[in-house]
Amino acid sequence: MAMEQVKKLIEKNRERFLEELFGLIRIPSVSACEANKPDMIRAAEYIRDMLLSGGASKAEVYQTAGHPIIYGEKLINPALPTVLVYGHYDVQPPEPLDQWISPPFEPEIRDGRIYARGADDDKGQLFMHLKAFEMMVSTNTLPCNIKFMIEGEEETGSVNIAAFCSGYKDMLRSDVILVSDTTMLSLSTPSITSGLRGLSYIQVEVEGPNRDLHSGLYGGVVYNPCNVLCEMIASLRDADGRIAVPGFYDAVMVPSDAEREKMAERPFDSEAYMKAIGVETLSFEKGFTAIESVGIRPTLDINGIWGGYTGEGAKTILPARATAKISMRLVPYQKAEETADMVIKHLISIAPSGVKVKAEYLHGGEAYVSPLDTPEYLAAEMAYEKVFGKKPIPVRSGGSIPIVSTFEKILGVKSILMGFGLESDAIHSPNENYPLDNLFKGMEAIPLYFRYYVQLKKG
Amino acid sequence: MAMEQVKKLIEKNRERFLEELFGLIRIPSVSACEANKPDMIRAAEYIRDMLLSGGASKAEVYQTAGHPIIYGEKLINPALPTVLVYGHYDVQPPEPLDQWISPPFEPEIRDGRIYARGADDDKGQLFMHLKAFEMMVSTNTLPCNIKFMIEGEEETGSVNIAAFCSGYKDMLRSDVILVSDTTMLSLSTPSITSGLRGLSYIQVEVEGPNRDLHSGLYGGVVYNPCNVLCEMIASLRDADGRIAVPGFYDAVMVPSDAEREKMAERPFDSEAYMKAIGVETLSFEKGFTAIESVGIRPTLDINGIWGGYTGEGAKTILPARATAKISMRLVPYQKAEETADMVIKHLISIAPSGVKVKAEYLHGGEAYVSPLDTPEYLAAEMAYEKVFGKKPIPVRSGGSIPIVSTFEKILGVKSILMGFGLESDAIHSPNENYPLDNLFKGMEAIPLYFRYYVQLKKG
Repeated sequence: MAMEQVKKLIEKNRERFLEELFGLIRIPSVSACEANKPDMIRAAEYIRDMLLSGGASKAEVYQTAGHPIIYGEKLINPALPTVLVYGHYDVQPPEPLDQWISPPFEPEIRDGRIYARGADDDKGQLFMHLKAFEMMVSTNTLPCNIKFMIEGEEETGSVNIAAFCSGYKDMLRSDVILVSDTTMLSLSTPSITSGLRGLSYIQVEVEGPNRDLHSGLYGGVVYNPCNVLCEMIASLRDADGRIAVPGFYDAVMVPSDAEREKMAERPFDSEAYMKAIGVETLSFEKGFTAIESVGIRPTLDINGIWGGYTGEGAKTILPARATAKISMRLVPYQKAEETADMVIKHLISIAPSGVKVKAEYLHGGEAYVSPLDTPEYLAAEMAYEKVFGKKPIPVRSGGSIPIVSTFEKILGVKSILMGFGLESDAIHSPNENYPLDNLFKGMEAIPLYFRYYVQLKKG
Repeated sequence: MAMEQVKKLIEKNRERFLEELFGLIRIPSVSACEANKPDMIRAAEYIRDMLLSGGASKAEVYQTAGHPIIYGEKLINPALPTVLVYGHYDVQPPEPLDQWISPPFEPEIRDGRIYARGADDDKGQLFMHLKAFEMMVSTNTLPCNIKFMIEGEEETGSVNIAAFCSGYKDMLRSDVILVSDTTMLSLSTPSITSGLRGLSYIQVEVEGPNRDLHSGLYGGVVYNPCNVLCEMIASLRDADGRIAVPGFYDAVMVPSDAEREKMAERPFDSEAYMKAIGVETLSFEKGFTAIESVGIRPTLDINGIWGGYTGEGAKTILPARATAKISMRLVPYQKAEETADMVIKHLISIAPSGVKVKAEYLHGGEAYVSPLDTPEYLAAEMAYEKVFGKKPIPVRSGGSIPIVSTFEKILGVKSILMGFGLESDAIHSPNENYPLDNLFKGMEAIPLYFRYYVQLKKG
């Protein structure tokens, strides 16, 4: 389907499209909230019905141990490639409610943006695929097989999708997975997320005496778990900003100079960056740039720490314990659990004998990286260039979407992160929004992706 | 008054004494609790009346900005020495109530101990002085002038007693202050607290970005306030357990070898000590013993630390700030505020430029040390030896009683810490108790102190 044709179709159906998206947004499908369970089912059925009315030959709601997954398909020819579209219909809790200008589940258009919980993440971005599919079917231009897998637990850790993928491996067989759940730099500087960091999240508790002690009567002879935890944490990083855990970098792959050069094309205004977050200097690993430190280097950050007296005023105790949540962002080819084990073993090994260290791996996932020279990626590059008028910059994001590496592991298929969101969309925050421009440009780009992809595959 | 005479008087009045003490204990004089304000007044008047009925020529309740202070006196001859007795009638809150075997304000004797809030701290110990006074007056054996200053805010920081001392300096003129608000090692190993550490308590906040950031998108380039705080805290102590703040030890006085030898007489069973608090090793400064590390060396302990996400599970944030409560126990002649300034300045100087450090001095007080060769101390040593059959060991306590150095500063008078409590009395905890043995032995020892003190002063 040519771009002009898509534009006309969007123009013609604009009001209906918006009304259908608003209908989906109005269902408060908050996966974290038990009370919204009936809404989860309503949202799943709403999407199933949209798939069927859009032309799917099959669309079903599958029960899981948690919230349902919708699977749909339209298979036109086994000789043609198959694209699997992933998305999620669940949303983050809307709280704090008093900070919303319009109610989170009553979508409202202001200044060319849809304001609502899920407007971007991920109902808006998922919706582009549903309508692109409908347009391709209605114009008889769907150039290959298409499948949909849409879950309802992305915001709560996608805990049941791995089992679903394992259980329905054949049904989900595909050549590429399309995911629209990320951002681009801007409409004038298009970009495609070409990599994601992994995550390894642990919790560490340092236990000292069997109760809080009087800091006067015991201070000076008894190991203080808070001091000890600080000392242990401090020792995890050296003066060059490298993580000082033996073996930590053994599996780390540094991309080629060519890729690092391409990455450096990404505009980065460090002054504006620092101003936006209110800091005066940045801190990153020696030998790498700031962008590289986020994109291609692992981290070790304290996400939370607590111990002893945290109320008002002074309490003179030597605390019985101190605890920290520590997470490592990972890069290819670090393994989440292995990294956790490595850090935990190291922490235990450096703890003084006067304390006990208890640590556990909470969760994680491996990093993901998309090669930039495959038909799967190049088709996306071409579609973005056509729609936005500029070749998109590949961006290695510092964040993590663990399902993407799960898909690669279980289904053996790479994902293309065709995100159309903007940093300013305030996902997970009050006043989440999604610009209409992005919504409709995304709808234009998706059919182009299908066309280019099938062309490139044919060679 | 001879010890045998005191014993007989106690025997004779035993039931009345206990009933009077119980009457005082039954008044829930919790200074921290606004609702108990009328009880504070009742308790103050109860003590005033006991002083008057015990023979004071004057006893009055003085209003302060907080809870009242009772002043009483019996002046027999300006040529004779004057002893000022200090005590406090306020108690710690009794919570958690469900852990008390008998209700906190209904005193009950079990196994030779009085169980109640305040049984030891300080109603029980204060009461010994009130009755010792009564016995001396009734037998016409009070050998010198006596004054009482009894406050109701010890458990909430003695915030108004300094102003009272300054305002009534003449009225409070004395040669020695007797304080019974500490412990002894045991009835078979009597001891006298000969020194107290000072305290300097600060709160330090490390501020990074202007909000919690996504640890994936920002981790690796932005200073993490939790990591930074840990690194700063870790740098405050060197490998020998010394505090690594420039100038920290400049004012510290190490006692003479002779005093250190005397201090070493204190029995210390490190195995039992460690077992009681559930640790496997101790940690103390190189070059000093465990007892010395508590008694004569300063410390730096984290009393509380917090930052970032401290709930269940994982939240992947790079926190906006991290905070710690840090206290230093001080030894002669460190100054509380100067030490705080020194540590705060050092922390600010070592903080990286990507964070801001805010720190404040919360409170503190100087260390106190009693010379062991003065009539004031020797009289106590003699009284203990007579009553317990053994010379008491001078013990430098690691704790702090800031009023003692306040008295020295404002009134220019040393205090003698004639404590008769035991570690097992569970002060500040549920089931606080005070052994009857200690109560009555204390009542025996006090009149002896007066006799010996006046004898020694006469020379």
